[in-house]
Amino acid sequence: MKREMRKGRTVSDLKNAWPALPPAKRIRQFERLPRAEAQDFFLGLDARGHAQILLALPPAERRLWMRSLAPDDAADCVQEAPGEVREALMELLDEPTRKEVAALLAYAEDDAGGLMNPRFARVRPDLRVDEAISYLRREVADQVETIYYAYVLDAEQRLLGVVSFRELVTAPFDKTVRDVMRTDVVAVREETDQEEVGRLLAEHDLMAIPVVDPEGRMKGIVTVDDIVDVVREEATEDIQKIGGTQALEEPYLQVGLGRLIRKRGGWLSVLFLGEMLTASAMGYFEEEIARAVVLALFVPLIISSGGNSGSQATTLVIRAMGVEEVRLRDWWRVMSREVGAGLALGSLLGVIGLTRILLWQWAFHLYGEHYVLVGLTVAASLVGVVLWGTLAGSMLPFLLRTLGFDPANASAPFVATLVDVSGLVIYFSLASLILRGTLL
Amino acid sequence: MKREMRKGRTVSDLKNAWPALPPAKRIRQFERLPRAEAQDFFLGLDARGHAQILLALPPAERRLWMRSLAPDDAADCVQEAPGEVREALMELLDEPTRKEVAALLAYAEDDAGGLMNPRFARVRPDLRVDEAISYLRREVADQVETIYYAYVLDAEQRLLGVVSFRELVTAPFDKTVRDVMRTDVVAVREETDQEEVGRLLAEHDLMAIPVVDPEGRMKGIVTVDDIVDVVREEATEDIQKIGGTQALEEPYLQVGLGRLIRKRGGWLSVLFLGEMLTASAMGYFEEEIARAVVLALFVPLIISSGGNSGSQATTLVIRAMGVEEVRLRDWWRVMSREVGAGLALGSLLGVIGLTRILLWQWAFHLYGEHYVLVGLTVAASLVGVVLWGTLAGSMLPFLLRTLGFDPANASAPFVATLVDVSGLVIYFSLASLILRGTLL
Repeated sequence: MKREMRKGRTVSDLKNAWPALPPAKRIRQFERLPRAEAQDFFLGLDARGHAQILLALPPAERRLWMRSLAPDDAADCVQEAPGEVREALMELLDEPTRKEVAALLAYAEDDAGGLMNPRFARVRPDLRVDEAISYLRREVADQVETIYYAYVLDAEQRLLGVVSFRELVTAPFDKTVRDVMRTDVVAVREETDQEEVGRLLAEHDLMAIPVVDPEGRMKGIVTVDDIVDVVREEATEDIQKIGGTQALEEPYLQVGLGRLIRKRGGWLSVLFLGEMLTASAMGYFEEEIARAVVLALFVPLIISSGGNSGSQATTLVIRAMGVEEVRLRDWWRVMSREVGAGLALGSLLGVIGLTRILLWQWAFHLYGEHYVLVGLTVAASLVGVVLWGTLAGSMLPFLLRTLGFDPANASAPFVATLVDVSGLVIYFSLASLILRGTLL
Repeated sequence: MKREMRKGRTVSDLKNAWPALPPAKRIRQFERLPRAEAQDFFLGLDARGHAQILLALPPAERRLWMRSLAPDDAADCVQEAPGEVREALMELLDEPTRKEVAALLAYAEDDAGGLMNPRFARVRPDLRVDEAISYLRREVADQVETIYYAYVLDAEQRLLGVVSFRELVTAPFDKTVRDVMRTDVVAVREETDQEEVGRLLAEHDLMAIPVVDPEGRMKGIVTVDDIVDVVREEATEDIQKIGGTQALEEPYLQVGLGRLIRKRGGWLSVLFLGEMLTASAMGYFEEEIARAVVLALFVPLIISSGGNSGSQATTLVIRAMGVEEVRLRDWWRVMSREVGAGLALGSLLGVIGLTRILLWQWAFHLYGEHYVLVGLTVAASLVGVVLWGTLAGSMLPFLLRTLGFDPANASAPFVATLVDVSGLVIYFSLASLILRGTLL
């Protein structure tokens, strides 16, 4: 076993180095692997890796590798390949698999239909348990992917129930499949979104979930190992959007620099155009600033506090929505919590800010004779801006979802920009109110 | 089947409503479920839910529910319960299970040891396949959780290989287990971090992974359904940290308002203290501002552009590190990419900014006679600030990881604050340089 373990590490070394290797080197290293390990390694790659290796191999060697893929993986691989070679890849498959793959390619990538494997173990309900086992022994052994359930279908391929291999093996042999199957099957439709599929698998602790059409006929299964990737990818997409980037869709180090810049430049320019309103807002209050330059000193402090509290609120709510802890109808509960949180956090920062101004005045005499009023203006603005930041940050994801957008687009920078502009208005309005007749 | 499906929906309705229900209502609704569904529902809850229900039930009813939990779930449940009732919960278990649970409680929550189930199907290598099947039928049926592999152990409980139930069922009955088992077993240690366990399960498409001690003796298994939750939780934690909040560790709507405020108030205050340096920086340049108020107008625009580009860079790098696409040793490659991205994005914003100033000047004559120099100052500052933002944002996660901290602490607000202060210095220094002798 020790030797085996060492081998395992070599493959896993290559796997680790993979993202950083240039394509030519990848193929060389791949071809150097012993055949048995190469197969393991190949099957463990994602669709992009499959396509890359297939296309780099001499055409004569491609067939074997392409045929080693399960239909759902073959479909993903074809999808990753450039348009002009897709047909050639399809030609490598045997006739029945080609049909299955073509059917899968018709589904959207994010649907259960696009994730499912059309091959699964099926049994008839009236078989005895021992008959079912020997049937599965004969028919299923090499045709289905590593799966763990046999699905019980009637003559019209409608799903009646499910039984795990373990349950079959441990059931009394003289019972029928109908006796031992579970009928409370959790199933999804072909068009069910992959996030929902993942939620159901996790909620019911399933290894695989059947996909049925509107008539209840079974079309395939989605296995939990595909879902781990989905959960990870969805989280990555959310995180990238929260950070104000378009979803990269590829590992960071593999995205070309040009693409990376475009994915970031779009949002950054939009935010910049929005942020220009701060220059207009500042321009509007230019006279106040000229009369009391002391006011300008606290502009960055106040608007960034609004931005930070907005970032907190929006990321919390986006994630809670992403994992379905918060639904659209919960907006009122979220809002009342955030009003509380905003007032508390704003008051906290207000007190810190006021203390700081009083201390610095006492030590350095920086803020002129009306320092108390300046301090109160800053403190009141902090309460207002933080409250506004948490409200905007927490409600914007709801607004986006209501309008049919992905709430993750309420990114931290987006909320910060929104709050910057309105924060300036809040600050200077409170300043005019509090300082009129003294500084202004 | 239709009736069954409707039932399923009721349970799932309760599951959906669960987070929003006050504790007292939860128990009432739970007790109203028919026994069979109640059990399904109970087993589908997380550890917090288990503890909540157990503690709310009359003591006489607790034993049955507690014993329905697998040892790893029972351990998690005990961990969730307040200290003073833990002993009482342990007492509900039968003697051998109590020992198993006590052993599990000794592991850290985030380790493979803390996730693992000590019950798994074990077979000896010299059994014939049909003997193994009937042995498993007799011994395993009710004792192990829904698992899919039988592990082949020698007399010292050392792990020799693994065979799935499906492989057993479909193998020739007269071969031995040793003939059909796979020996290239991927195993983890008890102290392996759960993120690493998740990565291995996903990489090798496994349903379960064995946990072995340093001598190779098998201690238990971690199943993939537990890992889906782990992947989700780790992503949630990362997202919350990126948003500048301490990880909540509970669903958003279930965290008490006081706790929610404390989890956010800590970071927010620290950021606020950091952000106060902007007031000092602005104070340092107060004379320049007084002489050229026009400079103040662009302060929010410039610092927020640095903050936004820093948010993008830090979230991209934090996530890439989280899913192991980027390692510590890649820092140089990341930096050279980000220098390129920062220069390109900074120039883009600089051009937009300059254009905007020239257009507004032409339309509204807002920026005085030296508007070209003002525009150039703003444009040059944008290049500098955006470059600095992307560099700080992309390198800070590396710095934190090198120092042993979680890179996700390089949150978007943290980077924004850092860049705000230094952005002001960049802006006013360039202004002194470019505008000396004219405006300043």
